[in-house]
Amino acid sequence: MSDYRAPVKDMRFVMDELAGLPELSRLPGFEEATPDLADAILDEAARFTGEVLAPLNRVGDKEGCRLTADGVVTPAGWKAAYKQFCEAGWNGIASPAEFGGQGLPDTLGVAVKEMVCSANLSFSLGPLLTTGAVEALLTCASDALKATYLEKMITGQWTGTMNLTEPQAGSDLALIRSRAEPQADGSYKVFGQKIFITYGDHDMTENIVHLVLARLPDAPAGVRGISMFLVPKFLVNADGSLGARNDAYCIALEHKLGIHASPTCVMAYGDAGNFGGGAIGYLLGEPNRGLEYMFIMMNEARLGVGLQGIALGERAYQQALAFARERKQGRDALTGEALVTLDKHPDIRRMLMLMKSRVEACRAMAYYASGLLDRAHAASDPAERRRHLFLAEFMIPIVKGGGTEMGIDVTSLGIQIHGGMGYIEETGAAQHWRDARITTIYEGTTGIQANDLLLRKLMRDQGATARLLFGEVQATTRALADSGRPDLQAIGARLGEALAAWVKATEWLAAEAGNGLAGPLTAAVPYLHLAVTVCGGWLMGKAALAAAGRLDRGAGDATFCRAKIATARFYADHVLPQAVAYGVTVCSGSGALAGLSDDCF
Amino acid sequence: MSDYRAPVKDMRFVMDELAGLPELSRLPGFEEATPDLADAILDEAARFTGEVLAPLNRVGDKEGCRLTADGVVTPAGWKAAYKQFCEAGWNGIASPAEFGGQGLPDTLGVAVKEMVCSANLSFSLGPLLTTGAVEALLTCASDALKATYLEKMITGQWTGTMNLTEPQAGSDLALIRSRAEPQADGSYKVFGQKIFITYGDHDMTENIVHLVLARLPDAPAGVRGISMFLVPKFLVNADGSLGARNDAYCIALEHKLGIHASPTCVMAYGDAGNFGGGAIGYLLGEPNRGLEYMFIMMNEARLGVGLQGIALGERAYQQALAFARERKQGRDALTGEALVTLDKHPDIRRMLMLMKSRVEACRAMAYYASGLLDRAHAASDPAERRRHLFLAEFMIPIVKGGGTEMGIDVTSLGIQIHGGMGYIEETGAAQHWRDARITTIYEGTTGIQANDLLLRKLMRDQGATARLLFGEVQATTRALADSGRPDLQAIGARLGEALAAWVKATEWLAAEAGNGLAGPLTAAVPYLHLAVTVCGGWLMGKAALAAAGRLDRGAGDATFCRAKIATARFYADHVLPQAVAYGVTVCSGSGALAGLSDDCF
Repeated sequence: MSDYRAPVKDMRFVMDELAGLPELSRLPGFEEATPDLADAILDEAARFTGEVLAPLNRVGDKEGCRLTADGVVTPAGWKAAYKQFCEAGWNGIASPAEFGGQGLPDTLGVAVKEMVCSANLSFSLGPLLTTGAVEALLTCASDALKATYLEKMITGQWTGTMNLTEPQAGSDLALIRSRAEPQADGSYKVFGQKIFITYGDHDMTENIVHLVLARLPDAPAGVRGISMFLVPKFLVNADGSLGARNDAYCIALEHKLGIHASPTCVMAYGDAGNFGGGAIGYLLGEPNRGLEYMFIMMNEARLGVGLQGIALGERAYQQALAFARERKQGRDALTGEALVTLDKHPDIRRMLMLMKSRVEACRAMAYYASGLLDRAHAASDPAERRRHLFLAEFMIPIVKGGGTEMGIDVTSLGIQIHGGMGYIEETGAAQHWRDARITTIYEGTTGIQANDLLLRKLMRDQGATARLLFGEVQATTRALADSGRPDLQAIGARLGEALAAWVKATEWLAAEAGNGLAGPLTAAVPYLHLAVTVCGGWLMGKAALAAAGRLDRGAGDATFCRAKIATARFYADHVLPQAVAYGVTVCSGSGALAGLSDDCF
Repeated sequence: MSDYRAPVKDMRFVMDELAGLPELSRLPGFEEATPDLADAILDEAARFTGEVLAPLNRVGDKEGCRLTADGVVTPAGWKAAYKQFCEAGWNGIASPAEFGGQGLPDTLGVAVKEMVCSANLSFSLGPLLTTGAVEALLTCASDALKATYLEKMITGQWTGTMNLTEPQAGSDLALIRSRAEPQADGSYKVFGQKIFITYGDHDMTENIVHLVLARLPDAPAGVRGISMFLVPKFLVNADGSLGARNDAYCIALEHKLGIHASPTCVMAYGDAGNFGGGAIGYLLGEPNRGLEYMFIMMNEARLGVGLQGIALGERAYQQALAFARERKQGRDALTGEALVTLDKHPDIRRMLMLMKSRVEACRAMAYYASGLLDRAHAASDPAERRRHLFLAEFMIPIVKGGGTEMGIDVTSLGIQIHGGMGYIEETGAAQHWRDARITTIYEGTTGIQANDLLLRKLMRDQGATARLLFGEVQATTRALADSGRPDLQAIGARLGEALAAWVKATEWLAAEAGNGLAGPLTAAVPYLHLAVTVCGGWLMGKAALAAAGRLDRGAGDATFCRAKIATARFYADHVLPQAVAYGVTVCSGSGALAGLSDDCF
């Protein structure tokens, strides 16, 4: 089993230098987010996640959840840890103060979320889904529903779930068949089966608030006929106390590759007949706008899943580093020393640096995107809000796609560094890899992120947001070139080549879109990888410049700053060159696939 | 659960066009390997693996093996399947006829091995280890030991194991502590604990022949003091009947990420006291040459593990393709059709082609290497034998490193195509990925393959073998350019760029080696990836030329030939460009790591 120590130094550095926390705390509503408060929160979250949540990670994997006659039972220690989590106020850290949250910027919340995910991904999913449901209620619930449900969900006294998927409706929500019938009292009876419902049932709280996508009787077909309903596990009386058990039950748990301690439920609504058929539910917002409300939460949710990949990469890096520093094996190829620890071998150092640099690049992207979201919410100028929202929304598929694919690669390197021991489950390295494997699938697969980047984020403003980013990358390239430091100049040279590939690929896509979608859609995922690679290199380059500045000023931790520059240099040499390769692939378009008949597979 | 149908067409095509089976069957000793016999063997192996072994794959994963008071018990159906496997003669297909084998070329054996691994990797490991042990006995056993053990191991009546690893000695075998004491009768008493012993115990055969690395009392330290001993589970009487139970016991089974049905044993030798301490063993060959003997088997063993990656990639491809053809989800982005099967979506097609092209490229490399090994054994001219051996040995780390890394990537794509269903264990897609994860570790990690390629295979003849290969790739590049077909010319253009990157990187390494090993050792794995990428592109290019030739002549299956050309084109557009990126990384050397202090991690 491995310890987890939150990388507070890097988190703080990224917040300050790349996400712009100091400026953020000058925005209206974020005045409390001072450097001192940020330090206090990060330190306390680091302690809590390291001491309370991290030790439960392996236990959860081994025990998993069990479905009993009384519902789902979580692993030993889960319930107590959740209670502590809520009591410390972690659940509502970025939720509005008026409903019991702490109202802090996402840029702070994101670091806390990363820590929770690193420590225990299965645990983190309950609060993640609850936060999503809270966002939905804030967006579209009536005041009465808000008054009944919001505060208890923000404090974590009750949890929330999102019910989208059905057996025939996965990525394609147009196929949803669950239905809702209006009742005389203004409520609805909800019928249907939902699958893959995270924390659909558990024993940590006395109530669970399900948000369920379903169709009204007169709803149009397809995605424009889906409404959103609130279906509580227990009905809530006028005085806030719990009433009758609703007809919403977990009828099976999935047996998954990873995240064993996160109950993935098959949920049946309205099947048991508690009220003569149908689960009692309440319409959220207007009819037929359910999917729209769902998409409002999508930015936060996808950023959150991107963070999961980063969090698992960080945890795997820490574990691999600890193992490599402990395990003695082989002769030092350079000095000839007879028996050295693994971390002295050049290829192990290469793998460790590959892990470290890719995690840090993705963390930089995620926190940067978070800072953009905060500005999109809080900036006083509407044009500035819009610009930041567009930039944030451009970054979201990059963070989600990039962070999760990186998470799988980096946790795999973690196993590799352990050698044969990595393949033994007791070591714990394999769990991170198994856990990471879901992240490129849920909340929209990597293919869906790529299509979102291409068809929506890139094309909706004819590439204007992309050009804004290109300008930023270009400015960093120039600053690196002008730095007078050979290591920074080496980074700048590679970044310039990578940016040129990105610009060229973007121009190719714009031109090609006129010839139909076959080429762009085949190129979408390679284009996403290209964008991820360049954005990571850009922010690592910016970080290296900031670190060099701190070294010049004698400010901060010199070892950290030297490491940051070396890590950025490694990324430039070992990761950035791939951008050029992705660019070639994008611009080859559908050549290889065009006209390929089905019998060729 | 998925079916498995051996890709006999591709196997046969690769054997004929790339491994040169027709010429091979004219070499002395291989006269029986006629096209008709090849067809008969492949068809029968396809039937056996598809009908008998493949259905047990998921059962084995679920049940795993159990350690009982009577030893290890394999999953339901295992014992019967193994009996059928041996009775059909599959175990000794490439072993010498004088000891009961079939004496066929490896080039045929390799296809059968691939099928067995695809159908059931856990099952395949017993015969794989047995074949390795047979090779060792052929190399260095006395005639008496050969007479007692060989035939029963070749027919599969008894299985064999290899005992290298100890808790403190993994990749570094110099640290082996197991010891052997000479006895008055010429036998030895062996003492020690070995870990990660595949099929160290099981219930499929009445006896197991352990090959154990251990030290003699007067042995020098390090790898030059290791001897190899044969330690049977049951002693063998003069008449061939079984005698006393030897002091060689499985004392624990590892709980692994994958290959659950392959028992990975902790073996204790000489601890139980059956003979007053020590297991009875027999020295194989000369004292202190154990590691040398082990390395003689290494080519076959590493080729075999490379094949495992290919086999799992193929199985995952078949499963993903079947799912994508069945599952309806989403609107056709090109035609607008409302609800289409997954395989109509451009990104799913891209993933399927990425799987297919990478599997076929690696299969081509493995079978090509096998053909080289056959020539190295059977060619009449000693200079030709040596040239083929050097080429084969150059290809081995490329096949092992490339096939296994590909296997992990491609089985991961298999999960991705399944979406959320891929994360559910019952689907079976996840098993291939878990099973594949060991292949980059055992029989030498990818890092060890890379060092082998660089420090031994590349440098031992000052790059002469590499230049021979460069010439071959260059010839294919030229033939593609001269083909007059635009699709082949497009492949040729990419291959030419990739080759240039490989040549440049090789020259850089040769020059850099003069400055010490830091640069080359940091670049080793990127260099391996570079070599894998180019060799794969080269053989796919050759395959495309051969397929175009067949189309021109109206010979063979036109759909297959068109698919082969399209697959090669896809590889050229989507995989080959990465060669250039790896080249940049190689030539950046240790820049980023040089002088990086330990506290920077």
